Amino acid sequence: MARWAPNTRERLRTAALSLFEERGYSATTVPDIVDRAGVTRRTFFRHFSDKREVFFDGDEIPQIATRMISEAPREARPMEIVMGGLRVLARERFEPQRAEIRFARQVIASEPALRERDLRKQADLRDAIRDGFRHRGEDESTAAAIAGITVEALQAALEAWASEPSGIPLTDHLDEVLQRMRMLLQTV
Amino acid sequence: MARWAPNTRERLRTAALSLFEERGYSATTVPDIVDRAGVTRRTFFRHFSDKREVFFDGDEIPQIATRMISEAPREARPMEIVMGGLRVLARERFEPQRAEIRFARQVIASEPALRERDLRKQADLRDAIRDGFRHRGEDESTAAAIAGITVEALQAALEAWASEPSGIPLTDHLDEVLQRMRMLLQTV
Repeated sequence: MARWAPNTRERLRTAALSLFEERGYSATTVPDIVDRAGVTRRTFFRHFSDKREVFFDGDEIPQIATRMISEAPREARPMEIVMGGLRVLARERFEPQRAEIRFARQVIASEPALRERDLRKQADLRDAIRDGFRHRGEDESTAAAIAGITVEALQAALEAWASEPSGIPLTDHLDEVLQRMRMLLQTV
Repeated sequence: MARWAPNTRERLRTAALSLFEERGYSATTVPDIVDRAGVTRRTFFRHFSDKREVFFDGDEIPQIATRMISEAPREARPMEIVMGGLRVLARERFEPQRAEIRFARQVIASEPALRERDLRKQADLRDAIRDGFRHRGEDESTAAAIAGITVEALQAALEAWASEPSGIPLTDHLDEVLQRMRMLLQTV
């Protein structure tokens, strides 16, 4: 099989996730994963720096956020920009991978090392959003508030979406979470 | 010096923080800290599991949150409980240690291992708040929204409070952050 087949990365992820499901995360090794995927060890490390990375294919999400914020029309309000961005991410990145994300979230929750990495990724997204709105001229405190709300809303919506079986789209969960946050803050 | 002097823990923290400030965090060892504090190595490890722990003296904050939430009057609204709790923490735990917290936050921001630990502690507080409101009968999604808003508001307020020199109380920053969040969410 050609090492540079365009779907190698996806094949490695699928192999890894199925092994994690069968044997557990800790018991699965990189050699197991490359055997199952039919690629070399070197190929694995060309795509992922370690086994944990298989779970974090969203490295580019902070960069996407940075770009969306900087390219938004000058007159757009911060929460319009955020909601527009979250809707695109929800439809294009998360919705097509619901089962995979659901399983990945379960493993992450059960492995402290993965959990720390996940929190780090959330913090990277928070920083990217905060910096993006600072560059648009928002003051420090507003930029931090926008970033905090966004990351929490996304996490809460992902949690609800991944855990409930009814198939309600992630964008609906996002609307609901933001509505709840709005109602809660009105009582402060 | 008596090993069980009630201020041993505080003396160790003061010694550690002054050494971190003089030599840098990485260059400071546990033997350096115990020398400066005038206690034995064993005493250090009775108080802190490792050097990183010196920065995280707020381990009990999630437990305090759990207790405050469970003991709040039945009729209290969630955000009233949260704001009441944050005000107590701000006045009693954070305000008296402004200079120390300011320095600790700088070191944490510059050391990836400390940053991960800090994020983990924030996540523990988020979980404690979410579980506390679940036990009060809030649904999953509302409990997650309350917890997310609280942790983000506290972090944003701490950041503003620790970085600005004017001496505005942390409670004022908390009010301001929540006000900003409310205004932002009204535009969704």
